[in-house]
Amino acid sequence: MARFSEIADEIEGRIQKGRYRPGEKIPSVRKLAAEFSCAKPTVQRAFARLKADGFIENKVGSGSYVRFPERIGRTGEVYDFSTDYLSESFFPVDRMRTIFDRLFSRQGAHAIAAPPVAGDPELILHLGRYYRLPTDRMLVLSGAQQGLDLAAKVFAARISEAALFEDPTYPGAVTLFRAKHFVPMEEDGPKLSALRRMLKDGIRLFYVMPSVHNPTGVSYSREKKEAVVDLVKRFGVILIEDDYQSEFVSSAAPRFVDLLPGQTLYIKSLAQATASGLRIGFMVVPESLFEKFRYAKYSADVVSAGLLQKFFSAFIRDGAYGEHLSTVRSRIARRKKRLLTLLSRYRELSIPGAQSGCSLWVECKRPLKIQSPPWTTGDHFSFSPSFRHCFRISFMNLDDDRFAEGLNYLRSVLDTALG
Amino acid sequence: MARFSEIADEIEGRIQKGRYRPGEKIPSVRKLAAEFSCAKPTVQRAFARLKADGFIENKVGSGSYVRFPERIGRTGEVYDFSTDYLSESFFPVDRMRTIFDRLFSRQGAHAIAAPPVAGDPELILHLGRYYRLPTDRMLVLSGAQQGLDLAAKVFAARISEAALFEDPTYPGAVTLFRAKHFVPMEEDGPKLSALRRMLKDGIRLFYVMPSVHNPTGVSYSREKKEAVVDLVKRFGVILIEDDYQSEFVSSAAPRFVDLLPGQTLYIKSLAQATASGLRIGFMVVPESLFEKFRYAKYSADVVSAGLLQKFFSAFIRDGAYGEHLSTVRSRIARRKKRLLTLLSRYRELSIPGAQSGCSLWVECKRPLKIQSPPWTTGDHFSFSPSFRHCFRISFMNLDDDRFAEGLNYLRSVLDTALG
Repeated sequence: MARFSEIADEIEGRIQKGRYRPGEKIPSVRKLAAEFSCAKPTVQRAFARLKADGFIENKVGSGSYVRFPERIGRTGEVYDFSTDYLSESFFPVDRMRTIFDRLFSRQGAHAIAAPPVAGDPELILHLGRYYRLPTDRMLVLSGAQQGLDLAAKVFAARISEAALFEDPTYPGAVTLFRAKHFVPMEEDGPKLSALRRMLKDGIRLFYVMPSVHNPTGVSYSREKKEAVVDLVKRFGVILIEDDYQSEFVSSAAPRFVDLLPGQTLYIKSLAQATASGLRIGFMVVPESLFEKFRYAKYSADVVSAGLLQKFFSAFIRDGAYGEHLSTVRSRIARRKKRLLTLLSRYRELSIPGAQSGCSLWVECKRPLKIQSPPWTTGDHFSFSPSFRHCFRISFMNLDDDRFAEGLNYLRSVLDTALG
Repeated sequence: MARFSEIADEIEGRIQKGRYRPGEKIPSVRKLAAEFSCAKPTVQRAFARLKADGFIENKVGSGSYVRFPERIGRTGEVYDFSTDYLSESFFPVDRMRTIFDRLFSRQGAHAIAAPPVAGDPELILHLGRYYRLPTDRMLVLSGAQQGLDLAAKVFAARISEAALFEDPTYPGAVTLFRAKHFVPMEEDGPKLSALRRMLKDGIRLFYVMPSVHNPTGVSYSREKKEAVVDLVKRFGVILIEDDYQSEFVSSAAPRFVDLLPGQTLYIKSLAQATASGLRIGFMVVPESLFEKFRYAKYSADVVSAGLLQKFFSAFIRDGAYGEHLSTVRSRIARRKKRLLTLLSRYRELSIPGAQSGCSLWVECKRPLKIQSPPWTTGDHFSFSPSFRHCFRISFMNLDDDRFAEGLNYLRSVLDTALG
């Protein structure tokens, strides 16, 4: 193997092991040439390969940096246990058809008019009632990811240095914010001693998923929530509360948006609890930031699709949303039981913490070597090597027939890897 | 009046006259205290008022800057000649209803599945055919504004210094890119001598609206287009070709995306030619940038509403889109004739250049003092005082009844102002 290729492999290994992390500068050509006892052009060739392969990027006049992963979720797998959206087959499409038909017949051309930038007033009203949230600071979004994107825009300056994340966390947020600071998650929320230490260091934003954390499935305890509120208040930090799947937790614990409305950006996906193609979500913004976010929304895509907003408005008002969620909850319980039975066959696997939602976060005693596994591996959710042996199995994306077959497929994969 | 208030008024006036422009640093407290022969705290109080009123903003450690305007288009005016979207009443809602019904009955749950990040493959196919564009580098967007937003993200570094705009231009782009550099528009495209001079100065992006320029309504001549292509090629600049309303120009001139595909980001709104609430658009990206834009799209809102994409796919395939556009073209011609007849009554008003599209750009010999005019005034489209006496009348947003009344209203407004 050519020398430059060996050096590139070594650097790639350091990136994968987390020795050089995304957003970090890697040592200069001069330093690496000294370390590997080779000529500078050899290191430069290694850099060229790493750049072509997407591992590093140059910043003009500043050197080479480890790139943030830009991974797009897979789709179209036969037995997909990696997607955390619900199967569309659970959705009451007939009801949807009736609502659309009624919309067109009653509203005519008005059905396709653009709502105000903040969202369709009726939808906002129904969301406020259903989720017990203030309507005057609500923005309807084109899905929850847009809420994160707007936050990244509004808080643009030094965001990478100023934002804190749970570890592990949702990868879409990590790349968007170019996350550098992480606080370890425990089974009832973030590790408080670490959080306290980090908040002292110029952190302005803290991104949290307190009800059904992604990927670990746990929820913050009441005590941890209150401790976080105290800390966040003291340091004047803004919480980004991503309410990932509170619909699927039994307890109605107060949210950060209830406990600390002046410092909480609350983000909620409606696609997550309905269907991946229904790209609507909403956020509740502290009053002092509302106009900034409203303009950021306007600047991002003017307004979210009016027709879908009208649909969701009717769907919630008619009670169909509540009925749908209740069916989904029963389905989750049934499937989870079957999946847990399967996983309990393998003594290397454990399910840490009290988990809710559409996924199970599984810890394996030893590293699993599986070519393209059907689930999402731990490295997607953390730069830290400690989650490499974990994985998230999302069990609600397959329809009923496929799910039964999928369980058999999971069993064969696990038997081969652990048997 | 308190001294600080006088000083604040004076600075506000300088901002409004364009002496201090958005994005520019205003003189320091020390300098202004010397200029106004007052104590520094007096200037500081003036700054505090200007900040509260949204005219200036502070950058930590750097001073005070004139803010970019964050204006959101008005809606809900009785006689709205400021909105450049078509009236929904022109849209074939019955046809839409049929398409939705067919979608639900034929596709069932599949109708609400999320398409791939780049867009529904069938829609991409039909867009490619209809607009004669390559499909392999196409991204479906949640409206054209999102295309600009993605470009601002992908080219983030030093964007304010690196991007060039026509003057006047679309205000949504100016604030998004924090635009500083402008090239004057003539009746057949940008002024070439100015363009040549500016491209030498580190410009990397040039935002253009060559077919129906917003707000002036003119289109680039073939000669100017070729001259722009030569210049842009020589300096390696990327063109952002915002195809605002080419559907409403008669000639089928080659676009920049045809002439220079490797350096053109082509952006197209579908809402613009259908209805403001149907938030779908698309872009064609040079191959070398495609993966970056695809990830930026994913990171912005994952994917655009699948159901709307399926609707547009059927609407174009069935020929309904083409029929709709042809009706709109006749309506534009009829309304434009009536509006021109009205405007010709006032010798102070003129319509410069050969204009197409849904608006008329009107030049007035003297400044018009009208409290909340029904059109969009020139200052929305330029920081330069030279367009203060111009305005854009968009004449396709009212339904037929309202339009007739609206013309009378326009007449009374103009009679009062000019009579």
